[in-house]
Formats: sequence, C-alpha cells, structure tokens
Amino acid sequence: MSPTPARITAVDTYDIRFPTSRELDGSDAMNPDPDYSAAYVVLRTDAADFPEGHGFTFTIGRGNDVQVAAIDALRGHVVGRSVDELCTDPGSLGRDLIGDSQLRWLGPEKGVMHMAIGAVINAVWDLAAKRAHKPLWQLLADAEPEWLVRQVDFRYITDALTPDEALDLLRRGKEGAAERAATLRAKGFPAYTTSPGWLGYSDEKLTRLAAEAVADGFTQIKLKVGADLADDVRRCRVARSVVGPDIRIAIDANQRWNVDEAITWTKALAEFLPYWIEEPTSPDDVLGHATVRRAVAPVKVATGEHVQNRIIFKQLLQAGAIDVLQIDAARVGGVNENLAILLLAAKFGVPVCPHAGGVGLCELVQHLSMFDYVALSGTTDDRVIEYVGHLHDHFRDPVVVHEGHYMAPSTPGFSSTMRPESIAEFTYPGGTFWAADLAQQALTDQKGEAA
Amino acid sequence: MSPTPARITAVDTYDIRFPTSRELDGSDAMNPDPDYSAAYVVLRTDAADFPEGHGFTFTIGRGNDVQVAAIDALRGHVVGRSVDELCTDPGSLGRDLIGDSQLRWLGPEKGVMHMAIGAVINAVWDLAAKRAHKPLWQLLADAEPEWLVRQVDFRYITDALTPDEALDLLRRGKEGAAERAATLRAKGFPAYTTSPGWLGYSDEKLTRLAAEAVADGFTQIKLKVGADLADDVRRCRVARSVVGPDIRIAIDANQRWNVDEAITWTKALAEFLPYWIEEPTSPDDVLGHATVRRAVAPVKVATGEHVQNRIIFKQLLQAGAIDVLQIDAARVGGVNENLAILLLAAKFGVPVCPHAGGVGLCELVQHLSMFDYVALSGTTDDRVIEYVGHLHDHFRDPVVVHEGHYMAPSTPGFSSTMRPESIAEFTYPGGTFWAADLAQQALTDQKGEAA
Repeated sequence: MSPTPARITAVDTYDIRFPTSRELDGSDAMNPDPDYSAAYVVLRTDAADFPEGHGFTFTIGRGNDVQVAAIDALRGHVVGRSVDELCTDPGSLGRDLIGDSQLRWLGPEKGVMHMAIGAVINAVWDLAAKRAHKPLWQLLADAEPEWLVRQVDFRYITDALTPDEALDLLRRGKEGAAERAATLRAKGFPAYTTSPGWLGYSDEKLTRLAAEAVADGFTQIKLKVGADLADDVRRCRVARSVVGPDIRIAIDANQRWNVDEAITWTKALAEFLPYWIEEPTSPDDVLGHATVRRAVAPVKVATGEHVQNRIIFKQLLQAGAIDVLQIDAARVGGVNENLAILLLAAKFGVPVCPHAGGVGLCELVQHLSMFDYVALSGTTDDRVIEYVGHLHDHFRDPVVVHEGHYMAPSTPGFSSTMRPESIAEFTYPGGTFWAADLAQQALTDQKGEAA
Repeated sequence: MSPTPARITAVDTYDIRFPTSRELDGSDAMNPDPDYSAAYVVLRTDAADFPEGHGFTFTIGRGNDVQVAAIDALRGHVVGRSVDELCTDPGSLGRDLIGDSQLRWLGPEKGVMHMAIGAVINAVWDLAAKRAHKPLWQLLADAEPEWLVRQVDFRYITDALTPDEALDLLRRGKEGAAERAATLRAKGFPAYTTSPGWLGYSDEKLTRLAAEAVADGFTQIKLKVGADLADDVRRCRVARSVVGPDIRIAIDANQRWNVDEAITWTKALAEFLPYWIEEPTSPDDVLGHATVRRAVAPVKVATGEHVQNRIIFKQLLQAGAIDVLQIDAARVGGVNENLAILLLAAKFGVPVCPHAGGVGLCELVQHLSMFDYVALSGTTDDRVIEYVGHLHDHFRDPVVVHEGHYMAPSTPGFSSTMRPESIAEFTYPGGTFWAADLAQQALTDQKGEAA
C-alpha cells in the first residue's frame, strides 16, 4: 500500500520481429515477404499489487523501429500519471495523446503516430481490465452506457452519430446481455480462417489446408487474390471444389487494384461465388469502394484493416461503400476509437468482421467482437473474426479456437501480454534469434566477397 | 570525372527545430505553440562536379525525431543508386519507396512514413534541377509531357484521371508557355499573407500588420479562426475595417470543427465577406467538406495542407467538396505526387492555392505553382500562394516577395538548401541554440526544486 497514489513509472518499448517471411506465411498481392512484428509497450507502475499494462501495434518488419520511436515520443504524456485516474477514464488519455498539437501535425490521426497512440491506449485498457479482474470484453460489456459514451471521442463524427444516439444503442444492448454472455462462454464467437489462402502457397498446400479448415469446423475461409488472374481463377476453383458449395469463400486483394480493375477482376471470379471481396482498392478511397460495391453486387465489399481512423469508417458507412466493416485492434487509436467505430457500424446496421492474424491481433480483437455481440449488436449473424493459426504461443494467454469458434477469454486483461522468452528471443536486432541470424548473414556476406 | 558512374554515397539527416512558439508566430485554433521544425535530408554523391540534393519535411516540434527516424529507414533504398538514373527518372524512386511492402504497412501513403518519402524524393528533384542548371519550376515547365506523365504514379486515380488525359493537359499547357514564363520572370506569381492573422496576436498587432500587408501590395490576407466565436467576430470586423471591401480575407479554422459547427460558425462570420473558409473540419472528411461547401456558399471551401495523398484529393474533387485546392510541398510523396495532384486539379478546373509558411514551405511550393501557371493551368486568375514572412533567412536561396508577388527563382534547384550556420545553431538537441537553452532550463528547474 503506497502512501501516495500509484503512478505510471515507466513506458518500456521493444522492437520485436518474427522471421515469418522465410515460410511465406502472410504473403499476399501487396506483401510478398512480411516479417510479422510488434512495436511493443509495457506500462510499469510503482504499486506492487497492480499488474503492468501491455500493448502493441503490429507491423510487417522494416519500420518497426520507427513505430518504437513514435511510442517513445509519447512517454512524457504517460509517465507520472495516476494509475487510478487512467484506468477510471482511459478516454482522457486518448484525448491527450491525439490532442498533442505538435505530434498531431504528423497525422493527424493516421499512420505511424496514430498507431503508436493506439499501442499506448491499448496498454492502459489492459491495465484497467487486469485491475478490474476481468477480461477486457467483460469489462466493456459490464460497463455503464454513460461511462462508455464518455470514453468515445465524437470529434468529426457527430454528423453521423451523436452521443445521445450512442447512448441509446448501448442501452438497448443491455437487454439480454447476460444471456448472450452465457452463450458466448459456452459456444464462443464464430471464426473464419485465412491460413489456407496465402498467395505463396502451392495448390497442394491450399487443398490440404482448406480441407483441414472444413474438418476443423470453419464455415468460411479466405483466399488472397490480385497478383495474377489466371492463378486466381485456378486457386478459387481448387478451393471451391475442396470446400463444396456451403462454405463461404472470401477473397482478399490487399489494395492491389484501381477501381476499374477491382470491378473487372472481381466479376471474373464471380463464378466461384466469393462471399466478399476484401480491400479491392486503396483503403483511403471511400468513393472508389462505393463504386466497386455498386458494380460487383451480390459479392459483398469488405474493408477496414488499413482504414486509418473513425472518420474514414464514418464515410464508408455514409457512402454505402461497404457490406462488411473490418476493424483492426492495433491500427486506430486503441479501444476508445474502436468503440466509436463499433457504434457507427451498429448505427448503420453493418456487421463487423474484424481483421486479425499478424502478431497478437487475434488475441486483441476477439475482445472487441465479443463486447459487440454481448452488449451492442446483440448478434453473431454474419459476424466472423479472422483467424490465422500462427504466432499465438508467444502470448501468455493465447486465443483458443475450437470447432471454428473463438472461446471467450477468462483471464483478466486484454490478452496482450507477450511471453518474456519470446521477447528475449525476437527483439530486433539484439535478441538471441536475430543476433545469431545477423552474425550468420555477415559471415555469408564475407564469404561472398572473398569468392 | 569518376571512372564509374556517380552514385549516392550517403543520406544525412538532421532534426532542426526553431523556437517559434516563444513569439506565438504560427498559433491557430489547433496549434497553440508550434516550434517550426524540419526533418532535413541531404543526399551526398561521390562526384565532385555534382551538387548535393536537399529535401525536408516540415513538422511543428515534438515528433521531429520520429520523422528523422522514418527518413533513416529509407536509407537502404537510396545509398548506392546511380545519380544519373535517379535524376533522369525521379518517379522510379517514388515507386520504390512507396512500394516497399514492409514500410507500406505503416501507412499506406500517409503520415510519418509518407512525409519521410516526400523529403527524400524532393531531395532528388533538387539534385536533378541543380544538375540541369535550372530552378525546379523551369525544369518541370521545360520537360516533355511524355516524360512528366511517366513521373506520375496513377495507381488509385485512374477512375478520375488517365495517363492519356494527363498527357493532353500537359500538351495543351505547352501552348503559350514561353510567353507565360516571360511574364512570370517579369511580374512573379501572386501571393497572399497570413502574417497578420495568427490567433495569438493582439488586435493592435493585427491592425498594424493588416495595414502593412495592403501597403505591401497584397490583395488577400488570412485570419485564423475557430477558438472563440466572439473573438473571431471582433477580429474579422477589425480586419475588414482596416483592409476595406476590395481586399480578400480568407479565414482558416485549422480543422477545429465538426461538420455542423463548421456550417454554423462560417455563417456567423459571413457578414465580413470571407473569401474562403479553410480546413473547416477533418482533412480526412471528403463527404463532410462537401456538406459544408453546399451549406456555406458563396463562401468558398479550401483545404489540402493536411491532405495525405492524391487519393483523398481525387475524392475531394470527385465529390465537389472544395472550391480551392491547397497543395503542400512537404506532406505528400514529393514532387511526383504533387504533379498528380496538380493534374487532377487541372482536370476538374479547380484553382490551386498552395499552403506555405512553416519552415521552407514557401521556398519549395513556389516552384510547383510557377510550373502550374507556365505549363499546365496557364493562368494566375484566383491563384495565390500563401506567404508568411519568417524563417526565410535560414535558406541559401530565400523567397523574394515583392509587391504581393513571389518573384521567380533563378538559382538552380528546389530552393531547399538550408544555410550551414542555421543547421549548426538549431539542430535539436545538440545545436548551439538548444544546448544553451536546455542547459538554462535545467538550471531553472534545479533552482525551482531547491526553493
């Protein structure tokens, strides 16, 4: 028991990179060789009884050091703050970080700086949930609507959603929430899997993994498309023949196309009955997505993993540009901003099917979908969370996916705590894996020069 | 004369900050205390006869170190490249930098990483212009339309502008270009001034500076608004009474408002006949700007200094959301992307009135407007470049503004070379100014603790 209120004493940052490019895990039309990485942040406190807060943003390798530098630039706003005040009102930190006028110039509310803000804010939510001895989804689902609304920054979105409308949505969400929480604990939340569909995989690997996905209970899989149309036709045919007519196949172009190409290419794959086309073009192109959606129906349009903030999501909804809204837990300004986005989606009646995969994105985003089901949208119809089956073991509380469903986490927190052994091994460039790898590379380079 | 072709040997970066917050220069509704800063980059080569290439992005203080880290992350793409190839085809570097799939995850094409790319690409254009012994505006105006079109990345904009349409616009721009270049050299390009209107200035200072602006030949001034309506009414009244009915007064809210506030507030100032309302809301809000524009006409809507890339500009034009397009030389991906934006504006017939001020933004952007006049739009009607009268002396080739006009630069390059003395003094935190300032601050803090 400290004589003074507990405070944040340090913001530790880590550049952690996993060498995923060597197996072509995660390869798609825009990202041929990602090394899945986390710019990882730990909030330390001076109270022995309080746990730490863990957060991160996800990158795919180079530039993860720039992300760490951006998180470092936020330190002055966090160190010395009261743990109690932060956890009672995480939204206030969001407003401080986003409102730092000098840092705001670097966005505003987009890219490296905004992702850094999201990492820090998510660490505060982790701390708040651990302190409340609840998994984050439950902390959010149990919260009073008035309090949740105060956590949301309504700047730039009141023309689509007012605080009063948000309050109404959350109050309606309370009806039947206890029953839904019980259902969630028993059955989990539906998942779909992207594991079979990476662009770098052979047809044999695609066939094997697609069959396994169906056997494992998934009712939706996803294929990466957009590099070569003939390849895509062949791979979609293979996948459809493996999974049969009743399993949904989503396709994902990872922003590869211009608007007209997106329309032509998607129509060329329509015979394989894709459920949605994901990221057909630039994530910034609201009007472009609306054009694509009108042209490719009944194929649905999905986007969001690269959407920078609530303002673009607002417009995607206002313009009728998407059928499926894909939040990402670690790109926008943390839980607060994702609350705004979930509320916007609920207002417009558009289902939220989160982007996940990467490093720890499944761990984080499951909490947001579960809150959405229990206390906001009230349904799992046409809602699925992306699932990719790798890198989970690096987390202390990895996701549990069973019969095509994410099981509800019961451990307090945001499932964002990375295992110390993983941090020690994969910190770049000094961790044991990278130190050995870079030494080996230097040796190879030397031999090359000598030859 | 080197035995092998000249190459880029180093990418030097500098964190340079000017303590402008101490005078409230640059204060507005969102930026109360900016320290105008440059993340500055110098491309060095191994050819004795070739000059260096200088570029930078502009920030307002904190986070300038993050910008420098982002430029550092690009070094591997630049060092070792052939100077000749880079200068012959600067657009190819743009595609390489933007196309680095791992770095792309941090945007894409927005925020810190994109601004860093812009700094490097602008340095290449500086090198190319110095090598051609021409100021950049002239290099661009003299260039073959086919070559200019090859410099532009049309990804995500072909639904609004095709390469063939761009070629037509540039070919038409050649007609009469020699006469316009002569006119430009004789008379310069119209400017407007923001110097009187910073939010932190007293009414007396506003009165004095507004009168001086008119006396100096400016036909448009700009006032910052958006912090307090009663203040804005008073300041607009003061300004209008000083400058009379014939001088245009632009007002600038720096993104302070939600859509509905923007409409109400602008209408409340309409009696003072503002020429345009600038940045009424979030720079990301294409549909919001369109709503504001419909509501506040005949007051024009202007935006662009925080618009992240050509894709948002494309939509602002497609949606009829702006009357005036404000490019910034150092936010998007350099000259290449600004070519795309100038071409889009020409296609849609919207005048370009660049954002400037900051550190060196006037120096850079004058070249783009002058090219636009000589070889693309062909007119200066309703076109003005922002002018702010400070920090120019830190550049080797500062802008020359005479009777309310930017005089055409004649020195080869992009006017982006900072004086070595300024770099030595204002590098943060080790330059002579900051070292002394921080030592003084530490001393004051010590005394405060002792007291």
